[in-house]
Amino acid sequence: MENNLIYLVPVIGLAALLFTMMKTSWISRQDQGTDKMKKIAGFISEGAMAFIKAEYKILAIFVISVGALLALTTGTDNSHPLVAFSFVAGAFCSGLAGFIGLRIATKANVRTTHAARTSLNQALKVAFAGGSVMGMSVVGLGILGLSLLFILYAHMFGVESFDSLNKVLSIVTGFSFGASSIALFSRVGGGIFTKAADVGADLVGKVEAGIPEDHPLNPATVADNVGDNVGDVAGMGADLFESYVGSIIAAMVLGAAFLMVPDFSDNFGGLSPVLLPLFLAGAGILASITGTFFVRVKEGGNPQTALNMGELVSAGVMIVFSWFIINWMLPSSWIFTDPLYSAPDGGPLVREITSFNIFLSSIIGLIAGLIIGYSTEFFTGLNYLPVRIIAKQSTSGSATNIISGLGIGMLSTIIPVLTIAVAIVLVFHLSGLYGIAIAAVGMLSNLGIQLSVDAYGPISDNAGGIAEMSELPADVREKTDKLDAVGNTTAAIGKGFAIGSAALTALALFGAYMTAAGISSIDVSKSTVIAAVFLGALMPYVFSALTIKAVSDAAQSMIEEVRRQFNTIEPLKKALEVMKRNSEQGTHQSMWSEKDQAIMNAAEGTPEYGKCVSISTRAALRQMILPGVIAVSVPVIIGLTMGPEALGGLLAGVTVSGVLLAILQSNAGGSWDNAKKLIEKGITYDGKTFGKGSEAHKASVVGDTVGDPLKDTSGPSLNILLKLVSIVALVLAGSAF
Amino acid sequence: MENNLIYLVPVIGLAALLFTMMKTSWISRQDQGTDKMKKIAGFISEGAMAFIKAEYKILAIFVISVGALLALTTGTDNSHPLVAFSFVAGAFCSGLAGFIGLRIATKANVRTTHAARTSLNQALKVAFAGGSVMGMSVVGLGILGLSLLFILYAHMFGVESFDSLNKVLSIVTGFSFGASSIALFSRVGGGIFTKAADVGADLVGKVEAGIPEDHPLNPATVADNVGDNVGDVAGMGADLFESYVGSIIAAMVLGAAFLMVPDFSDNFGGLSPVLLPLFLAGAGILASITGTFFVRVKEGGNPQTALNMGELVSAGVMIVFSWFIINWMLPSSWIFTDPLYSAPDGGPLVREITSFNIFLSSIIGLIAGLIIGYSTEFFTGLNYLPVRIIAKQSTSGSATNIISGLGIGMLSTIIPVLTIAVAIVLVFHLSGLYGIAIAAVGMLSNLGIQLSVDAYGPISDNAGGIAEMSELPADVREKTDKLDAVGNTTAAIGKGFAIGSAALTALALFGAYMTAAGISSIDVSKSTVIAAVFLGALMPYVFSALTIKAVSDAAQSMIEEVRRQFNTIEPLKKALEVMKRNSEQGTHQSMWSEKDQAIMNAAEGTPEYGKCVSISTRAALRQMILPGVIAVSVPVIIGLTMGPEALGGLLAGVTVSGVLLAILQSNAGGSWDNAKKLIEKGITYDGKTFGKGSEAHKASVVGDTVGDPLKDTSGPSLNILLKLVSIVALVLAGSAF
Repeated sequence: MENNLIYLVPVIGLAALLFTMMKTSWISRQDQGTDKMKKIAGFISEGAMAFIKAEYKILAIFVISVGALLALTTGTDNSHPLVAFSFVAGAFCSGLAGFIGLRIATKANVRTTHAARTSLNQALKVAFAGGSVMGMSVVGLGILGLSLLFILYAHMFGVESFDSLNKVLSIVTGFSFGASSIALFSRVGGGIFTKAADVGADLVGKVEAGIPEDHPLNPATVADNVGDNVGDVAGMGADLFESYVGSIIAAMVLGAAFLMVPDFSDNFGGLSPVLLPLFLAGAGILASITGTFFVRVKEGGNPQTALNMGELVSAGVMIVFSWFIINWMLPSSWIFTDPLYSAPDGGPLVREITSFNIFLSSIIGLIAGLIIGYSTEFFTGLNYLPVRIIAKQSTSGSATNIISGLGIGMLSTIIPVLTIAVAIVLVFHLSGLYGIAIAAVGMLSNLGIQLSVDAYGPISDNAGGIAEMSELPADVREKTDKLDAVGNTTAAIGKGFAIGSAALTALALFGAYMTAAGISSIDVSKSTVIAAVFLGALMPYVFSALTIKAVSDAAQSMIEEVRRQFNTIEPLKKALEVMKRNSEQGTHQSMWSEKDQAIMNAAEGTPEYGKCVSISTRAALRQMILPGVIAVSVPVIIGLTMGPEALGGLLAGVTVSGVLLAILQSNAGGSWDNAKKLIEKGITYDGKTFGKGSEAHKASVVGDTVGDPLKDTSGPSLNILLKLVSIVALVLAGSAF
Repeated sequence: MENNLIYLVPVIGLAALLFTMMKTSWISRQDQGTDKMKKIAGFISEGAMAFIKAEYKILAIFVISVGALLALTTGTDNSHPLVAFSFVAGAFCSGLAGFIGLRIATKANVRTTHAARTSLNQALKVAFAGGSVMGMSVVGLGILGLSLLFILYAHMFGVESFDSLNKVLSIVTGFSFGASSIALFSRVGGGIFTKAADVGADLVGKVEAGIPEDHPLNPATVADNVGDNVGDVAGMGADLFESYVGSIIAAMVLGAAFLMVPDFSDNFGGLSPVLLPLFLAGAGILASITGTFFVRVKEGGNPQTALNMGELVSAGVMIVFSWFIINWMLPSSWIFTDPLYSAPDGGPLVREITSFNIFLSSIIGLIAGLIIGYSTEFFTGLNYLPVRIIAKQSTSGSATNIISGLGIGMLSTIIPVLTIAVAIVLVFHLSGLYGIAIAAVGMLSNLGIQLSVDAYGPISDNAGGIAEMSELPADVREKTDKLDAVGNTTAAIGKGFAIGSAALTALALFGAYMTAAGISSIDVSKSTVIAAVFLGALMPYVFSALTIKAVSDAAQSMIEEVRRQFNTIEPLKKALEVMKRNSEQGTHQSMWSEKDQAIMNAAEGTPEYGKCVSISTRAALRQMILPGVIAVSVPVIIGLTMGPEALGGLLAGVTVSGVLLAILQSNAGGSWDNAKKLIEKGITYDGKTFGKGSEAHKASVVGDTVGDPLKDTSGPSLNILLKLVSIVALVLAGSAF
């Protein structure tokens, strides 16, 4: 490469990592509060680390096996071991990002609790700093790994000719495959872990024994809090790491086609379209870091406004950056003969591509992401009609609660799917397949701050849990609840965003796959192709069924374990009786007899938290294998037996069906959750009031329990499925076809 | 046409209608039993007729408007009014078949009850005779209408040239469009009617007031029984009428391509491939009539065996018929240059088609239908693992019941989708697109007897209801229950079969559409096409959401009406109190005090059944409009704005996504229903027994209530949606492209 500016990209990646180190060290210096807080936080942190260690052991075996397989089978000539190397590097970076995020989240949670003892702003600051470590390590490691590999291979094979460039890119694709594999296991495993613990803690602890949420005497409560971290922090991080890396690689592969344009002149020897996504991503990191400085709230202020401000500033900065980068890197217009498509008259399709249209494409991606995110917020938010309808339907029982939630979930697919459809047509019209990939990059360019905001949620949630378990004064819990409430909104938007970006990334990969496989059409009127579309559409259903079953099996084991502890650990058994008796008499804990207090003190620390953590761990690890094997093997089998065009059909099927089923599950789950919360706040219909403990509340708890595995396990896992299947196809295309 | 044998086809259609008249007159001569039975049957019959009259009034407006629109816009030259004429004829035949079926079902129900007072065989005979009237009138009217129109237009325009034949077929297509429109409204309207009544009757009557199912004092019970007829008899009939007609027309359109084969010699001047589906369908009617003679059971015998015997015999006869007809009509092999597809090297695709392969294709269709039907039986049947799992999960509450049902529903998509995928690839390999259409015809050729068996179910169910409402001795109800239990199995298989045939018919129509629109590929890598695939896949979600919402709104009105009657009709109110008091004291009705008996007698006939019927009627009619408009207008809008290839993408999307979502909903609903029934029989886990009234039972009732609209309204409506969208596309292709 003639231009050394490419080295800027890994430097920005390093800068992001430096930023995470500074934040980490700042967080570590914050006070952890009382001994009890430290002890409980210690349990959570140990549990999380125990899980991730056990998980990474299994993943190491998987990565080594698949790596060896790749080394033996892939690549066109002497590149076999390099694809494997990229794969291992991708897995390592994704795993490392997850580890960093998880470790900081389990540090930041207790420090957020302690900070909440003094001020809301301080608590927000700690929680958001924790989130930003996750966010920045994902984007930093993503861009660093990707750009270094590209530079390395570029030096080895050269990127001057179309063939050598394609070779380099096909080897780099292994990085995304590695990241996808880790993402799959993190999302599925983390999702199973967190919901098994959650259901176990709720059903036996809250419902059967009648003790409050997050109570220290509930043996599953630590596992529940561990779950928030492994599912919502590490799982979400791995998911978006994959989208991020996948969209960049797809854009690079599609950009390579422009190398054939005769009079293409730029600062990078014709490579600008390939490098553009890396530069945009780098600029996104700077924009995200800028945004973090604007997240601050005054005492009594609204944390939501603070987070919005951070995201808004970085979006604004990013738009400006994009404008300059695109104009700097690309000629203002060039003529391009499309390698895939023909003109309507059957002759070659000649397009004029302008840098302005590419800029527009990236903006359309950004806007589409926002629309999908906010439509999720509308369908699942506490203050909007859909959740109110479900709450109202809960007053006639569980059945109507469930039916209306399913209906809302189905309706909620309309806006995202229309948005995706319109964005595809618009962007393709503006700048072809490359534009779709750039739109995906545009949607994800601000991932640094978006993920910071996403990860902030579970940290605040955990902080509240620790406040409860450590029996801190009510005003601390109030502050963490305020942070947590905002976290729920951001989580909903984040989930919508994750689905939207997965869809666009999968479509971009779809285009990259076609280029790599050298096929110019995927004709669903062919029998093998439509059959493959059916099979692809089937995959999300099978995948969801397996993950749902995994959660319900694991939850069953958890329920049995919690019941066993309640029945066999004597001090615990006695304490539960005391709590039950006093609660029936309506006596507040401060008024309990000395004898009762003594029994409670004796019970402290007797629940065997570790056993619950290891039940969730074992279940999660065992049950993530089969879905993983299906996701990786089906595209390989279809590709090898039915050919590249049918494999394209499989991709189309899995993407379309996966997006719809993911939205249905995520939004139905989210709306049931908030309908329950709405009823807990108290609602009034026909002059009757329904609140906590009412029949309507019980009905809404059923909906919430049904929704839990849908919104936190099977739904989000589908994001990974559709990207992973596309990436496997892309890797396969580089070697088998 | 040179060969007068074509007139055999309408003659067979007439024979089928003659058969229904004979059966009708035989049923009418049977005794209706006691005055009370007559009175109750009268209510049901009046309700059903009131509904269908109100429905047909609205449909008449719809048919006239769309017919006028077609007359003004469609057709290539002077054929505009003829497409409209075909459309009206199709609507009329479908409507007439529904009317005949509904009328006979409401006659046969009470006569079945009366027959059950003497013997099981007699009851089976009456119920099955009723079913066979529905079955034979559907196939008879279908084949009669279709063949007469074809003969008429053939005489008008000639069928010797490829162009004139295509013109004739494109005009005949209007018949299928007419049938589809009626099917949509019957399925959706009937589905809404039946579930609103069912939920209303159950929730207030059974759950709140604690009176038994089908009790005469429940005001919604007549509406509930009317619903069985309008939903399960008329709705199912219209659904399969559409599949039947659609698959035949698709095969005719695709068969027309063979007219171009130079040395094609047969008995019909080269028209054999076009006429083959008509002859196969005709043979199927004869096979079905033959089968009906084998449906008989000895006292104490199993009605299931009798029905199986009837189906088996007619399947066997049909296979033999198919062999001879195909060999007689088609040359043993011919060389054909595919008009749509190219060979892998890009040159023309030359296939050798053999009559044996076409025979195999029809058998594969038949087998695929059976596999899908029996997999439905496995996933929803009382005696298999899936339902047992759900029953077991019900012991830990409603939430686990719902989650496991959803998981089972998702898993149950695997076998049908694999079957469809394998069948497509196999059949296409054997005999191209034409083979797929012939497979659909093969699957549906025995529709006469299959639909007889399907319609037998709700008649038996109604018979039981009448026995209960007329307070007949328990042994009568036992006999009808025995018939009904078999009916549930056949209903499950019938539902699977309806979905499978819808999928295959839609695919055949898809092929016919491509031929008619003159497009040779539907390339999902084009942005407009993949966007349209997304939109197509979205349609079933929107459609389901709307129908689910319709049921829950209508059920709400029904609940309020039943409550109102219970609270304001004094004799009824008193009777309920008596029942409640005695039930709490565990006193059997025969032991009640004279005063209580008097109160009960005074209440008799006071519930206002008619009001409940009209609530269901109004809701059903109002709420079927929007889904209908969406189904018809979306393909038109997409076709006109995005072009024929994108419309093909829409078809692919709606078919794939619709099949999956329909199976999920039907099977989840069916399995919840039977899990409840299993618990009602009593189940034992961990040494504990759970039966009627247990917590597990309550949980299973929630699942059943959730499943009701899914399995009887939104799921089956999707069958129609995917066929209707294809048929609209086909009609549009004949005029707009």
